[in-house]
Amino acid sequence: MTALRAALLQGPAGAPRTVADGLAALDDAARRAAARGARLLVTPELSLTGYALGDRVADLAEPADGPSARAVARIAAAHGVAVVYGYPERSGDAVHNSVQLIGPDGTPRANYRKTHLYGGFETTHFTPGDRLLVQADLDGVRLGLLVCYDVEFPETVRAHALAGTELLVVPTALMRPYDIVAGTVVPARAWESQLYLAYVNRLGSEGEFDFTGLSCLAAPDGTVPARAGRGEELLLADIDPSLLHASRTENTYLADRRPGLYTA
Amino acid sequence: MTALRAALLQGPAGAPRTVADGLAALDDAARRAAARGARLLVTPELSLTGYALGDRVADLAEPADGPSARAVARIAAAHGVAVVYGYPERSGDAVHNSVQLIGPDGTPRANYRKTHLYGGFETTHFTPGDRLLVQADLDGVRLGLLVCYDVEFPETVRAHALAGTELLVVPTALMRPYDIVAGTVVPARAWESQLYLAYVNRLGSEGEFDFTGLSCLAAPDGTVPARAGRGEELLLADIDPSLLHASRTENTYLADRRPGLYTA
Repeated sequence: MTALRAALLQGPAGAPRTVADGLAALDDAARRAAARGARLLVTPELSLTGYALGDRVADLAEPADGPSARAVARIAAAHGVAVVYGYPERSGDAVHNSVQLIGPDGTPRANYRKTHLYGGFETTHFTPGDRLLVQADLDGVRLGLLVCYDVEFPETVRAHALAGTELLVVPTALMRPYDIVAGTVVPARAWESQLYLAYVNRLGSEGEFDFTGLSCLAAPDGTVPARAGRGEELLLADIDPSLLHASRTENTYLADRRPGLYTA
Repeated sequence: MTALRAALLQGPAGAPRTVADGLAALDDAARRAAARGARLLVTPELSLTGYALGDRVADLAEPADGPSARAVARIAAAHGVAVVYGYPERSGDAVHNSVQLIGPDGTPRANYRKTHLYGGFETTHFTPGDRLLVQADLDGVRLGLLVCYDVEFPETVRAHALAGTELLVVPTALMRPYDIVAGTVVPARAWESQLYLAYVNRLGSEGEFDFTGLSCLAAPDGTVPARAGRGEELLLADIDPSLLHASRTENTYLADRRPGLYTA
């Protein structure tokens, strides 16, 4: 089985001035990712709008099949690369902190609403999602979606691994001083639940928030094949199903669990 | 509330020649720990006998109230320090890979049978325990006991945190090449479940096994207040209930879980 090449966009710095700017940055990254052989481009949490939106969240929110989704679909199809992007999602009266996967043919494949909201800004402006496991297949690899704080709970990643996720895609907006999440928790998640984990962060400052960068691809064998610094970066990394299979054979955490003991 | 000072004994190198040698090493460490103000001494997995026992496991196994337990009780009482030690436990026809906590007054406080056995040697010679949560109080701190491979499952540590454990005591026999467990997984556990974790390893070689050392105390605030190298070491570290309280107030993982989503 051939490897799936992913591109992790840590950027651009700061919030886009407009959604049109966010889409232009996405188009540029998708072009560069495709030129380097990527079949998947992952961008940070709320990548289309920026994170520090304050009261503008509701105004910027769009349905999952809104104009921004259609614009991303055109970008994905134009470059033949799947795209994961973050946006405030309008659904009736609710606004969710969502990420969507558009396939390399421009077809929407999966939409996930962040289930664990973080901090006062998010809990004020967003409604948490109520469905944890959102998955899709890409080139024979089973992808799952989470957002930021979600991945800090080992239960979420475990549930994905048990449901067959091989590459967990996690757009994020990790802030200082929480480097421990990018540096320690994320590699631990990939190891303990035996899957690949693409953790793609914002960088720079927006309002009161100071993002840490340090995006990475963490592998099930305990290695970190790709790691960004604090600046803007387009990381390329391969998801290798044969490595995943070998690692799961060697490190039998999923089989050695004793679920009957954990809920006593 | 005053801090609880713990001593983590990474040693002695290799297996004791006899259980009497193991007890002598324990007595020496308890004396040194007490002299440095420790109220708790933690020793590695199977500290009284050594790990690479092969077929001698059954011969060396003793009941939880056997002669070795009485000898450890005399050591603890003589130095006024609680002791956690590892031993093969005889219980009817079964032999468990157990750890026992003896209080500073020489009274047995808790006995735990490893629930997640690792590798061919252990699964051949031991019967896994069927009770995950074993706790005891020491100087106002709620202690929990796990052994080695147990802690690599986030579920076990989470269950302890939810049951009130503040200091998780984990004698271990971590082998090369699994440095990732000591360096990454253990600090992640302390952080994600907001507790102190004392991870106390063997060192050097025994038979086919090559132990990694790297014992540590990991704290709930993401720091590692004490970390051993590869050699013999008696680490001293304080468990500070006020730091634990402050960290749990700041990092609200235990309150922010959504258990209803994890088992769908």
